[in-house]
Amino acid sequence: MNTQEIPYKIYLEESEMPAHWYNVRADMENKPAPLLNPETLKPMTLEELEHVFCTELAKQELDDTTPYFEIPQEIREFYRMYRPSPLVRAYCLEKKLDTPAKIYYKFEGNNTSGSHKLNSAIAQAYYAKKQGLKGVTTETGAGQWGTALSMACSYFDLDCRVYMVKCSYEQKPFRREVMRTYGAAVTPSPSETTEVGKKILAEHPGTAGSLGCAISEAVEAATATEGYRYVLGSVLSQVLLHQTVIGLETKAALDKYEIVPDMIIGCAGGGSNLGGLISPFMGEVLRGERNYQIIAVEPVSCPSLTRGKYAYDFCDTGRVCPLAKMYTLGSGFIPSPNHAGGLRYHGMSSVLSQLYHDGLMEARSVTQTEVFQAAQQFARIEGILPAPESSHAIRAAIDEALKCKETGEEKTIVFGLTGTGYFDMYAYQRFNDGEMTDYVPTDEDLKPGFDSLPAL
Amino acid sequence: MNTQEIPYKIYLEESEMPAHWYNVRADMENKPAPLLNPETLKPMTLEELEHVFCTELAKQELDDTTPYFEIPQEIREFYRMYRPSPLVRAYCLEKKLDTPAKIYYKFEGNNTSGSHKLNSAIAQAYYAKKQGLKGVTTETGAGQWGTALSMACSYFDLDCRVYMVKCSYEQKPFRREVMRTYGAAVTPSPSETTEVGKKILAEHPGTAGSLGCAISEAVEAATATEGYRYVLGSVLSQVLLHQTVIGLETKAALDKYEIVPDMIIGCAGGGSNLGGLISPFMGEVLRGERNYQIIAVEPVSCPSLTRGKYAYDFCDTGRVCPLAKMYTLGSGFIPSPNHAGGLRYHGMSSVLSQLYHDGLMEARSVTQTEVFQAAQQFARIEGILPAPESSHAIRAAIDEALKCKETGEEKTIVFGLTGTGYFDMYAYQRFNDGEMTDYVPTDEDLKPGFDSLPAL
Repeated sequence: MNTQEIPYKIYLEESEMPAHWYNVRADMENKPAPLLNPETLKPMTLEELEHVFCTELAKQELDDTTPYFEIPQEIREFYRMYRPSPLVRAYCLEKKLDTPAKIYYKFEGNNTSGSHKLNSAIAQAYYAKKQGLKGVTTETGAGQWGTALSMACSYFDLDCRVYMVKCSYEQKPFRREVMRTYGAAVTPSPSETTEVGKKILAEHPGTAGSLGCAISEAVEAATATEGYRYVLGSVLSQVLLHQTVIGLETKAALDKYEIVPDMIIGCAGGGSNLGGLISPFMGEVLRGERNYQIIAVEPVSCPSLTRGKYAYDFCDTGRVCPLAKMYTLGSGFIPSPNHAGGLRYHGMSSVLSQLYHDGLMEARSVTQTEVFQAAQQFARIEGILPAPESSHAIRAAIDEALKCKETGEEKTIVFGLTGTGYFDMYAYQRFNDGEMTDYVPTDEDLKPGFDSLPAL
Repeated sequence: MNTQEIPYKIYLEESEMPAHWYNVRADMENKPAPLLNPETLKPMTLEELEHVFCTELAKQELDDTTPYFEIPQEIREFYRMYRPSPLVRAYCLEKKLDTPAKIYYKFEGNNTSGSHKLNSAIAQAYYAKKQGLKGVTTETGAGQWGTALSMACSYFDLDCRVYMVKCSYEQKPFRREVMRTYGAAVTPSPSETTEVGKKILAEHPGTAGSLGCAISEAVEAATATEGYRYVLGSVLSQVLLHQTVIGLETKAALDKYEIVPDMIIGCAGGGSNLGGLISPFMGEVLRGERNYQIIAVEPVSCPSLTRGKYAYDFCDTGRVCPLAKMYTLGSGFIPSPNHAGGLRYHGMSSVLSQLYHDGLMEARSVTQTEVFQAAQQFARIEGILPAPESSHAIRAAIDEALKCKETGEEKTIVFGLTGTGYFDMYAYQRFNDGEMTDYVPTDEDLKPGFDSLPAL
């Protein structure tokens, strides 16, 4: 097809939007290792998971054979308020880079949560409501997940309790206010409202908190309160399942114009966005139908795929959650305060970890100054001010497009632009003022994290 | 047409996007009164306007007979990066209000400037570049216009100097950083960089600044610097012309589904968004083809249409700009610090003022707590966190939909959702904390403004 005919933005019709989520595990020969009960070290059962998660979500978490899950009508109606997201042809960026590469990005930032997180938040809120629960608890770091969940709970009239990492709570008052506008109760973590919070505060008075610690508090709050369950915005296989709406829309939009990408690039923190984007493409690879170069991009300062160990580990600092087999820096790993933005989780989705372990995708790490250079360049050319997280993928996409310029290859690059950076202006300010630096952990720096790995 | 067939969001194809702006003045029997030279009190000539504005823009400003202006190809390419904006059917809001009314909103917030301002910013930057200028100067209050212009200048590689009202500069550091990310130089106003700024600082030391004062500084900076011109984000007829892309897209989307609105609602500050939205519909009214109820919504605390005088007045506090005949509170009017958000300009587009004077549209004013109640309700139901400015239109749309509930009328309501409130979280915080109050100016409060009107 003539490139002249491809619009700047490909929008699917409502009738073309996905009616099912795709469960990539069904097509994996090597299944992701099961979650383990931290006490018995045996695979988690449905009964055990139901204690923490809604029943339907627990089922999705454990199901590695059903390839498609129908998206309930109520969720599809909510999706229609902010989806389909556009698949954008980056004509202006291509021109500026003077590259023969064709660059597309799937933009998930055009909703008030500012990111793809809403795709799973609305699903999790729906199942909680359907089960007759009163509310849900969760943690949030940068605040995107918490905002998304607040929006979803407000829509389904569910109570929403968010444990927000204390340093973010203080540094990002506007994120907090967005959540409050949607009716959520936001507590800085660690807090005195949970036993694990009290314990952490006693051991580390004045701590700025961490995501792992906030997870522990949210889980405790859910399991200790009648009618509540815990929900999580990344890492879990159920979240990855919901996020496949990104990849399915992307694939439908590409198919509509008979475009076959050569490579697919996404940033990787807990892995939900990357997993959601690549799942339908990975499915083709797993079924032997087609091949793609798939690249995960992570921060140099939190390099779970590129420098982590493939091992069973705790998902949270408080060690109350199940163990997952994943690429991990150890639940005791604490990202440097130098690091701006998200992607600071110590582990990685067990689905993606297995795929990476099997050589089905690549990973690379980039420094944050490189990332912000790409973010600024992208903002000025394509108009969208990207989230720092998303800008990891931009960095890699630009690097690949520049390689094409050298080799003359007309590769088609698709990357995930997960969100906008409107609430990350502190980090941009540091960059604008020339005050941003990079932190590259030494092996010595990574040692305490690895030492925290459980001996199984 | 069956309502079931109308999607949640109507997007035009690229081929359906407007190729021309529509100049409503061409169809007006009573033309807006001409701008006057503040020294000679005679109508401004092209030569005089060229001193301040780019030549093409000065021509657009003066032209009240040409009905259509072709949108240059370069601008249409930029429009394709973030346009068409969706015309959204507010199914969820209708359901929650339990109204027989059908509600649509044209959402202009899905771009990094966060509002419709980008539609004119890119046009003004284009003409400046085409004329071979080095850069442009402007003022910004809430920061949306400054952000839009920064984005546009960055795209065309033009220097951009923004005078930002001092209180906003201090209260909205993130807006400032967005502008800096796009390469703009941002100066708090009043400043020592201009004569008028020095004068104002000498007379009112410690002043928090005002939009009228920032305009004066930006105009002086432009006229005093070789290769620079001044650009303005609202009020002017050229800006209203560029903003008709909103109304033309809205009309094309409605026509596509054979929808005929009963009423069109927009918030009104300087008038560019409202004017752009209603122009094509007003054109039909002026040509006797159809009739619509058109409603301008303004803040009770800055009521230029509902309580202002229809008179020649200065556009800026420093009285360096031409005089415009408009509904005005007087250039000496200073909005109460109680007032959150934009829509704080003392006057109103001379085009809209004439239409209002001729009884072709209505105006009403609303208090800010009513506005934030509507904003919160809208956010929770429709998912989008609206700008305070836009929420004036939401308030009126909800009020009209509730009237329909009482009367049982199935009216079709279209309103302009001009932007998002991500940088207005201070105001939301005040509302969330129950600390927001209303200010209704007495006649006595309005007197100083009226006393500042020039005696012509």
